[in-house]
Amino acid sequence: MTRRLIGVGVGPGDPELLTLKAHRILSTADVVLVPATEASGDGPGRAERVLGAACPEAVGRIVRVPFSMSDPAGVTARRAAAWQTSAAVACDAFAVGAQAIAFATIGDPSVYSTFSYLADAVLERFGDVEVEVVPGITAMQALAAASRTPLVEGDERLGLVPIKKGVGDLAQTATEVDTVVAYKIGRHYAELCSYVSSLGEEASAVVGVNVGTPEQVIGSPDDFDQVPYFGTMIITGPRAQRGGRL
Amino acid sequence: MTRRLIGVGVGPGDPELLTLKAHRILSTADVVLVPATEASGDGPGRAERVLGAACPEAVGRIVRVPFSMSDPAGVTARRAAAWQTSAAVACDAFAVGAQAIAFATIGDPSVYSTFSYLADAVLERFGDVEVEVVPGITAMQALAAASRTPLVEGDERLGLVPIKKGVGDLAQTATEVDTVVAYKIGRHYAELCSYVSSLGEEASAVVGVNVGTPEQVIGSPDDFDQVPYFGTMIITGPRAQRGGRL
Repeated sequence: MTRRLIGVGVGPGDPELLTLKAHRILSTADVVLVPATEASGDGPGRAERVLGAACPEAVGRIVRVPFSMSDPAGVTARRAAAWQTSAAVACDAFAVGAQAIAFATIGDPSVYSTFSYLADAVLERFGDVEVEVVPGITAMQALAAASRTPLVEGDERLGLVPIKKGVGDLAQTATEVDTVVAYKIGRHYAELCSYVSSLGEEASAVVGVNVGTPEQVIGSPDDFDQVPYFGTMIITGPRAQRGGRL
Repeated sequence: MTRRLIGVGVGPGDPELLTLKAHRILSTADVVLVPATEASGDGPGRAERVLGAACPEAVGRIVRVPFSMSDPAGVTARRAAAWQTSAAVACDAFAVGAQAIAFATIGDPSVYSTFSYLADAVLERFGDVEVEVVPGITAMQALAAASRTPLVEGDERLGLVPIKKGVGDLAQTATEVDTVVAYKIGRHYAELCSYVSSLGEEASAVVGVNVGTPEQVIGSPDDFDQVPYFGTMIITGPRAQRGGRL
């Protein structure tokens, strides 16, 4: 039997937003790795909480591994060590007989996840492993659905931009698309709101915090003084008036 | 009881890529509307085929409605008539006692779907209806997963561009993002391949046709002479060399 390492997207937080495939794989994998963040301390991280609600049968097979931010441009020694630790956990499990190991990630493993680094680190140590990816619903999609904001229609173009370093990249991208979604908006929220104001009345924006969880809050930019790091904003019509510039 | 109209994304084609929520709602709705395309003739359209495989219990409650392309910039009389016909079917069902009507759409109702037009047309005729949206996995995500191509990592930016009218918009958007995804690539496939070639060796591309269906084909641009209308291409690193221009 081929050994399998499967990156599984568990969606944004709502246990019902797992796919049937994600549910089947997480329910039957020999081991389910979940990222444990420093923020979550000794408690479960977000992926583990979703898993507990959606797949209680997986709980006895969960193993926490160190979380590391997805940032290939700035791979620090600490981050590389985190992937290697996670890879070692997976390889040890394969060595003692595991056939299928799942790595549960919030959202989609193809969108700002670290799964590809984990997979590469496992393949370096243990060549004979088949890697699979199961897509998941992203926060952007969950916010669009919950707020009934179509992301794109007809010939429209969509952009997705994380604003960890400020609003400059977002404003540039917005000149080329009809809807632009900002991820990781917490740190630069005031700057982002100023940018949205500069777009004029034909643009509109909706903000989502903890979308799909019991703590979900959705509103307009003015409804929030500040938002946590992982907040999301959908900005519709940034090109409607060309005046929108930083 | 409040009447509910629910736009439900059924994913790209694989019945296992429905969410648990989509499955629950489609299994229990009083009526399930599915778009019937001219291309599908008297047979089931794509959403109906997914539904038949994923939710056999829904089959007896399926009603086909005319499909119309999502194109707010070019609303033809024929398209508007299609939405009105669909809205009339929904309103007739509410009038005879239906409490929950689902509209099944391939992919995600927030991404190039006509659900928002249907919802608006229903609300015009029948004010007392609660509209909900259940997100779904898009072709872009399914292709990324099946080909193990991360869409974005770290601080990277993503663009999604339909190329019904040619490659110009895509090439413009690609100057601002790290990965650009092209939808509806069939008609302009040769032009798209020329553009990808112009990007140089640091860019790469993967093409998916019928991703998530039994007819799925995934390959590099050179693997295809032509692709159907609904093909998808992920282009990674279009900015790696700035030479990539039309």
